[in-house]
Amino acid sequence: MSYFTEDTSTEVVNGRIGADASPRLRKVMTSLVNHLHAFIRDVELTEAEWETAIDFLTKTGQICCGNRQEFILLSDTLGVSMLVDAINHRAPDGATETTVFGPFHVDGAPERDMGANISLDGKGEVCLYSGRVLDLDGKPIENAIVDVWSDNEDGFYDVQQPDSQPAFNNRGRFRTGPDGVYAFRGIKPVSYPIPDDGPVGKMLAALGRHPWRPAHMHFMVTAPGHRRLITHIFVAGDRYLASDAVFGVKETLIVEYLKTDTPSEVWRADYDFVLCRQTA
Amino acid sequence: MSYFTEDTSTEVVNGRIGADASPRLRKVMTSLVNHLHAFIRDVELTEAEWETAIDFLTKTGQICCGNRQEFILLSDTLGVSMLVDAINHRAPDGATETTVFGPFHVDGAPERDMGANISLDGKGEVCLYSGRVLDLDGKPIENAIVDVWSDNEDGFYDVQQPDSQPAFNNRGRFRTGPDGVYAFRGIKPVSYPIPDDGPVGKMLAALGRHPWRPAHMHFMVTAPGHRRLITHIFVAGDRYLASDAVFGVKETLIVEYLKTDTPSEVWRADYDFVLCRQTA
Ligand SMILES: [Fe+2]
Ligand SMILES: [Fe+2]
Repeated sequence: MSYFTEDTSTEVVNGRIGADASPRLRKVMTSLVNHLHAFIRDVELTEAEWETAIDFLTKTGQICCGNRQEFILLSDTLGVSMLVDAINHRAPDGATETTVFGPFHVDGAPERDMGANISLDGKGEVCLYSGRVLDLDGKPIENAIVDVWSDNEDGFYDVQQPDSQPAFNNRGRFRTGPDGVYAFRGIKPVSYPIPDDGPVGKMLAALGRHPWRPAHMHFMVTAPGHRRLITHIFVAGDRYLASDAVFGVKETLIVEYLKTDTPSEVWRADYDFVLCRQTA
Repeated sequence: MSYFTEDTSTEVVNGRIGADASPRLRKVMTSLVNHLHAFIRDVELTEAEWETAIDFLTKTGQICCGNRQEFILLSDTLGVSMLVDAINHRAPDGATETTVFGPFHVDGAPERDMGANISLDGKGEVCLYSGRVLDLDGKPIENAIVDVWSDNEDGFYDVQQPDSQPAFNNRGRFRTGPDGVYAFRGIKPVSYPIPDDGPVGKMLAALGRHPWRPAHMHFMVTAPGHRRLITHIFVAGDRYLASDAVFGVKETLIVEYLKTDTPSEVWRADYDFVLCRQTA
């Protein structure tokens, strides 16, 4: 029997896992302890830094409430969310790339008529979004649900301002017909800072990082027999494309917003979504 | 400019640290991101597992209040606290070894007369603790403060039961004279479970680990010109010595409690503390 020492710490902690622990939990926790101890050894973490870490994690948990989920922000800003997304959504060439889900999706947004305007507060420049939902062979997918959401002209989602935005402002679901086409009106979204008045904001400031996300429209596309696609389209030219606070940008998701001649519909954004077949 | 991908995640996230970040913060966070991403890659963390982790961390923060510090429990049970302790308290042979501070120390316990009984509730078997505070040359240290605390017969610290234990029950501070001797009466402590009704308790259960700590008396010994010593002595023969939930046990800290012939003072425990000189 050997007691814990600086040299044996990892083996001693992992050696304590019982025979009845699930194999997957054993694998995950063993790797976690390996990497956690390696990190502490690597930087020779001081006691003051350990106290700072305990305090940071505690405050991060305690600021969570309702729509504020600071640990997701932490995961997002450290690239953890995007890495988990990348690992779990490897897809063949040609499939639309995924990006972070983000904390602002709302289940049960109303299904609207094709072409309807989701901007209910009348703020912002109107944009016509359209395109098709296709499979990897380029065939249209019928009965795909295109669930969309964005911030408003001031950079806030409706759930962030429940008292001053109409319910389901800048949200809607659209169902494709046999041609796989979707179309709706929304705003040309604006860049916005992630909530930065909590521990994660302090961390970003200490790291010399800004909290801004480049302007984007969120899409979740589902269709029978296909893998759910969660992604954004980003507005080409946005100043934060190269420094998204949550690392969500991918080249293939940047879309040119085209100016129209119609004052009532200032912009157009066209994008086709290509879904993978569901695997068993 | 390159966007985040599964392959470049670590470089992209760390490349975002600004020029003005402190060199130490840069080093710590870079290493943290390296190890965190390596862990996620290693186990190919699933989205469901990521959600479980977010929920676990959030609940761990939210259960913290007053004397309950669940993130310290998490650190303790993953061996992080002991590893940080080991790295920050490397000491020459002959110096008393350190162990975890634990969450139950209270500042400002009363200074008591040498030999006084710190067990104010009259519960438990009385033990006479004595020994000397020495430097590495074996010379007695005068004016050392020996700050001691333990659980009561039921396995609870006074701060865990503020309504049913006297204030400063099983706590006291003792000041050495020129001979470096300390002596006090306390109880022969009992093993106790760390609080296991929260997220950390659930984690231990899932890992097939128990929450028990072997019986111990806490010591914090301070003296002018010397490094502060935070340690325990453990009761030899305790059934949890080989499986302390927080990995605090070291061979040199296990002490034989000797049975006496005196009914009013059932046990004796003798231990000398050897302090290192303060380094600049
Ligand atoms: Fe967003
Ligand atoms: Fe203790």
